[in-house]
Formats: sequence, C-alpha cells, structure tokens
Amino acid sequence: MEKELIESRFRELQLHICNELEKIDGIQKFDEDQWTRSEGGGGFTRTIVNGKIIEKGGVAFSAVHGDVSEAMRKQLALEGNSFFATGVSIVLHPKHPRHPIIHMNVRYFELDSGKYWFGGGIDLTPHYVDEDAAKLFHKGLKEKCDAFHPDFYNKFKPWADTYFSLPHRKETRGIGGIFFDHQDESCGISKNELFNFCVELGELFSVLYGQQIAFKSHDEATEREKKWQLTRRGRYVEFNLLHDRGTKFGIYSGGRTESILMSMPPMAEWTYNLQVEKDSEEQKTLDYLSDFHDWI
Amino acid sequence: MEKELIESRFRELQLHICNELEKIDGIQKFDEDQWTRSEGGGGFTRTIVNGKIIEKGGVAFSAVHGDVSEAMRKQLALEGNSFFATGVSIVLHPKHPRHPIIHMNVRYFELDSGKYWFGGGIDLTPHYVDEDAAKLFHKGLKEKCDAFHPDFYNKFKPWADTYFSLPHRKETRGIGGIFFDHQDESCGISKNELFNFCVELGELFSVLYGQQIAFKSHDEATEREKKWQLTRRGRYVEFNLLHDRGTKFGIYSGGRTESILMSMPPMAEWTYNLQVEKDSEEQKTLDYLSDFHDWI
Repeated sequence: MEKELIESRFRELQLHICNELEKIDGIQKFDEDQWTRSEGGGGFTRTIVNGKIIEKGGVAFSAVHGDVSEAMRKQLALEGNSFFATGVSIVLHPKHPRHPIIHMNVRYFELDSGKYWFGGGIDLTPHYVDEDAAKLFHKGLKEKCDAFHPDFYNKFKPWADTYFSLPHRKETRGIGGIFFDHQDESCGISKNELFNFCVELGELFSVLYGQQIAFKSHDEATEREKKWQLTRRGRYVEFNLLHDRGTKFGIYSGGRTESILMSMPPMAEWTYNLQVEKDSEEQKTLDYLSDFHDWI
Repeated sequence: MEKELIESRFRELQLHICNELEKIDGIQKFDEDQWTRSEGGGGFTRTIVNGKIIEKGGVAFSAVHGDVSEAMRKQLALEGNSFFATGVSIVLHPKHPRHPIIHMNVRYFELDSGKYWFGGGIDLTPHYVDEDAAKLFHKGLKEKCDAFHPDFYNKFKPWADTYFSLPHRKETRGIGGIFFDHQDESCGISKNELFNFCVELGELFSVLYGQQIAFKSHDEATEREKKWQLTRRGRYVEFNLLHDRGTKFGIYSGGRTESILMSMPPMAEWTYNLQVEKDSEEQKTLDYLSDFHDWI
C-alpha cells in the first residue's frame, strides 16, 4: 500500500463525488482551484455555489508533505521528522432549510518513522430533524461499517456523538454519524482493508446525501424556515471555529485558509438569546439535539 | 479601593454608556437581562437591536466570584484559590456599512492572594477604512492615555495591533486602538488612578463612537456596500471565535454563552476565495488592513 496509490485513489474519489453531486444538484457544476504548498504538496479545492439543491459547497482534495513543524509536534503529538498527509473533505450547505447540511472527511497520514493512520467520518446536520431520515442515514452507515468490522459502527458512532457537539450550547451539532481517527491495523483489519473502508465510505457519501435530498418533497421554504436555517448555520460556524480540531489545526498551523474555511455557510445569523415557540418544530429539533440517540 | 466600589462604578458605567448610545441611535432602547452564576455572582446583559444606527449591539456588565477552577488555573496561570472579576464589555454592529464596528472592554480581576490587575481597551473595525476618521479615533485615545501616563499610548497601541489581528487572513481586524492586560501599580500609576483610567476610558467610548457616526453623512447603502459589510462581519466572527482570548476562555470555562456571543454580528456572509476589484474602495480597505499604521 504505497502512499502514491492512496493519494491517486483519493483524488479519483473527489472527482467521483463531484460528478455524483452535480447529478443530484441538477443544474450547477463545480469549479476547481489548484494550489501548491511552499513546504511541499498541494491540492485541488472544488466548490459549487447557487445550485438548485446546494447553495454553497466544497469538496477538497489535498496531498501534502514536509517536515514535522513545532506546531504539529505539539498539537498532534507526532514522533517523526517528516510526514505525508492526503485526504478528501466535504461540507455542503443546501439551499432548502428542510435539506440537511452534510460533512464528510477521509484522510491518511504517515510519518517517516513508518507509523501511519487513517481517519474520517460522515455526519449530518439537519436544520429540522426528521427521525425517519436520521434512521435511514445511520442505517446506511452501519451497513458499510458492518461490511468491514462488526465493531466499527459501535465504536465510531459514539465517537461522532462526542466529537460533533457544542458543549457551550448544550447541543449536538446534528444527528451525528460516524467519526474515527488514528486507525491502523490494530483496529482489527489490515491497512489495505482500512484504505478500502475509507474509499467505500467516500463512495457511500453521495448515495446517502442523495437519499436525504430525495427523502421527502418540500414546498418552497417559508420565511420562518429560512430564518431558522440561518440560525442553525450560525451554530455550524460556532462548532467549526471553536471546536473542530481539523479547522483549528489548519488555521493555527498556516494551512490554506480558503480551503479550510470553505466549510463556512454562505450566510449565517445570530439573534441574542433566541427563544423558540413551545411545541414548535424548531423546539422539537432542539429537543433532538439536546442528547445523543440510538437511531437504529 | 474596595472591589465593591469598582463593581458598582462599572455597573454605573454600563448604564451611562447605554444612555449615551440610546441618544446616538435616536430611536431604539436597550433591553436588560439579569443572570446569576451558580458558582457566585452574575451580571446584567443589555442589548439593542434594529436601531436607526445600531443594528445589533450589546453592553454587558458582570461581577463574578468563586473558586479558581482547573481551567482558569491552566489558561490564566492564576496563583490563588478564589477570585473576583468584574467588567464591562461592548460590541456594536452598525446598520450602515460606512459606520464602523466598535468594541470596548474594561475589567478588574483580583485573587485572594492579594494580587489584582486591570485590563481593557477600545478598538475600531471599519468596513471601509477612512483615514481621517481613523486618525480622529486614535487622537482621542492618545489624549486619554496621555492624561494618565506619557507611556500608555505607546505601550497600549501596539498591543492592540498585535492582539486584534487575523494571522490566517494576514489582516488586522480593523484600525486598532488600545489594549492592555495585567496592569497593576507597577505600570507607573496607583491602583486608584488605574481604576480612574478604566472608568474614563469607558466614558470616552460613547464620545468616540458618536464622533465616528457623525464624521461624515452617508447616502443610503448600496447593495455592494451591504455585501462587503457582510463579508467583513464574517471576518469579525472568525476573529472572535478563533482568536479572541476572552471569548475562548468564556466558552471553554462554561461562561454564559449568550452574553459572550452577543459580540456576533446579526448576519454574516462567506464567499469562497472572494476577489475584490483592483483600485476599488474594498481593495483600499484591504491594503490598510494588511499592516499596522501610526495613525497619529
């Protein structure tokens, strides 16, 4: 399992996902920016705006290498002198408030010491939680996990719950999904199989997103739904800038800001001490987000 | 100089500032929320929305006390068992893109060990930098500093430059101002005089803001100006959630989220890799923000 193979397969994955998302969107295409990193490597950042379904989204691929910097050594506790990292990251902000925000990431990291690991995950952030849609999403993730290891879903689902949470709001980011980091062959499957798991997870992404979009048909959004969407997007900003380790590491270690912050929504709103109506759909969503759930 | 006196004078300061801001706004009044902290103390958060001048703003007062927690010990390097802290914090987001965002904070901290310090500052974040308005702002700050100590402005102005910067954007937040922290009598003036400096700085705040609002008359905002304002507000969000020590400490240590995040703009926008026109006013502002300036 050479790193060049992982890199080229991840780049293919990015292009595959963009193709599938263009089909789901129906009208809009991705633009591509290529960038290089002065210390070694670079990437392709693909973005889509003002689609029929996707208002703002990004699918980023990067493959970077170089010396382990002091910031990396400190924040990632790395033991090695040089590193290689490649991955695909996605965040999509849909236009319709009844469609969910979705995030995916698969990544591979290796050190000159020979140590390597895979990480990744997919999670869903509905502006309005629909229990059946949440179940369908988790069912798809569990099936993929089960195909690789019987323990994966039970390990990676709670990991997502804990990771994608906003303690300062006493809220989860959304209905979770799966998240994993620092996985090598000690997780119970070979390096090759772990790689296949990441690639297949990436391929599953557009299938799961397509299911969510097709799950129900929705009327044109009301002003109330749009306002709630802007508020929930504000929470997404808070998570990404205050808590997301990938974002913080990227920003503090001098990564490419525009690629890191492609996760930001097109627009977000903050209202001081917003109160929602009792028994409203907004309150129902907040109730769902107040705790973790077994969706299966 | 008893802490009770500082606390009551800071609360008076909050009410004075709100009165002055209501006069500047002309139509809208502040609402007040009182809150208590289970570990000791509490505060009054005053907010204003949809004014003629101020679209969203907050003037917060708090006075809290309790045991020094592990988080505080770690993040603030505190040597003591119990603490007392009181302060006034302000962020105002104006409606018109040609009016600046403004921030002020004065605070007092003491430990049971007898150690105390004052901190604070005022800084200005114009959506469009106007050099003459920036000079007037710094002139006002320098005069107030000079009245207390000949070195204050020269010490506190560069401190604001360094503090209010977004390294990940290679931008300053705005045109700076003054910032200081951990000041006790070793700064060259007595505790009593330091306290007076903080109070007078607070009193100066509404004067400086009034000057900025009255500095020029502006036509109704264009769509282009409004869009630029939303983008600059996005940068303000980035600073506050990624870099602002007060925000991060408040959030991570379990402070009152709604009071801490009253600094968020009413609405903000993110555009992937936004490019501004050459020789435009937006580019001129970015040029000003690309480095620190001596405004006097």
